[in-house]
Amino acid sequence: MTTAVKNGGQITWGPRVDLRDIPNLYAPQVVKPYTPPSPGIDNLGITSTDTFMVPGKGEFTVDFKGYVRVARSQPSTENWVDSEVYTNLIEMCMRGEAPGIGSIIVTLNPDILSTGMLRTPWTDMNCSQPEKACRMAVAAMFNLPQMGMTLFNKEPIELTIDHVQMIPPAGNPGKGQIYQILPLYDRANPEEKPAAYLTGLKFAMGNYITQAKIESISSRK
Amino acid sequence: MTTAVKNGGQITWGPRVDLRDIPNLYAPQVVKPYTPPSPGIDNLGITSTDTFMVPGKGEFTVDFKGYVRVARSQPSTENWVDSEVYTNLIEMCMRGEAPGIGSIIVTLNPDILSTGMLRTPWTDMNCSQPEKACRMAVAAMFNLPQMGMTLFNKEPIELTIDHVQMIPPAGNPGKGQIYQILPLYDRANPEEKPAAYLTGLKFAMGNYITQAKIESISSRK
Repeated sequence: MTTAVKNGGQITWGPRVDLRDIPNLYAPQVVKPYTPPSPGIDNLGITSTDTFMVPGKGEFTVDFKGYVRVARSQPSTENWVDSEVYTNLIEMCMRGEAPGIGSIIVTLNPDILSTGMLRTPWTDMNCSQPEKACRMAVAAMFNLPQMGMTLFNKEPIELTIDHVQMIPPAGNPGKGQIYQILPLYDRANPEEKPAAYLTGLKFAMGNYITQAKIESISSRK
Repeated sequence: MTTAVKNGGQITWGPRVDLRDIPNLYAPQVVKPYTPPSPGIDNLGITSTDTFMVPGKGEFTVDFKGYVRVARSQPSTENWVDSEVYTNLIEMCMRGEAPGIGSIIVTLNPDILSTGMLRTPWTDMNCSQPEKACRMAVAAMFNLPQMGMTLFNKEPIELTIDHVQMIPPAGNPGKGQIYQILPLYDRANPEEKPAAYLTGLKFAMGNYITQAKIESISSRK
């Protein structure tokens, strides 16, 4: 018996996007609003403000800045209204700083495929030009080099963007759908109780960025 | 490299509760309010009202009734205020009916350990007798025998109960924290796009029930 949440050795939280023969899209790009796009890998800037609670240390809020690489599937139809697009977050690097903690570098957990989709909310299926809704289940690692610690989530961090008028939704604000707390675990003691909690997350998708910019963020010490 | 989300062959969404030497608790039981209890397996009734969207078929709401078996850890401290209790949902059977669909039987996905915790919200840590918050990440299977289909979730169904004055929180209402949609997949085509979506979930924990009652629910055809 299998529920195939494991796929190619990796746990998957949703459909895998076929990465063969899809172009890598860097800045500059022209995006047509209300138009299902050809498949591609979007290389985009991102900013995020995350709030963490560490038991015994208190709550702290960190501003992150970096990039994401998002693979998009072939849209299910050519019509904006009923087309669905599936996404995989295939790379991420965001950097932030917290007083008393030092650097925090957020990347993807390689053991889990972060997956998502864009679709028209059912209540808007009769609109001629609806705004779409975007959701993504993210498996992240929060590396704290000065603390000698890496935290990770076992339940997905659900990122959502509403009011999507074009794909990718560059410039749109988004939210982490966290009800009170999302447990984070210490990779050195992964079976123990949570080491910290994510208690809030707001982000904004940026525009297409260059390959050079991505390399400067990912290679920074 | 491992993030140990796999544990004993099973994916785990949180800490595993040690099931050795903990008693099976059936009706009747006396539960003391505001008191961290000894570890145990709570055998409880449950009712739930779930709303599903099936693309091309529409939205339908189903009332379920059944039982859960919840293993509780040793509380982290003896004080109600700061004690944390970890939980595993080790068995579930809920039955419902939907017009045009037939029976729906909800059980646990054996490939994933459904995990949860009870804790005092940080904002209430200075209260002398706070109400606790309960959360559980559930991996379910929805068997539709007349349709010849079983649906399952890859992202957890997050069930929450607030205002918990005793453990277990028998009689408390709870909610599935679903932002718009939670994708459900067809076990016959697990790597395909979602076959349906869970769009709403409200539940109520029942009281302790007898072993005979549990057996009558789980063995019913």
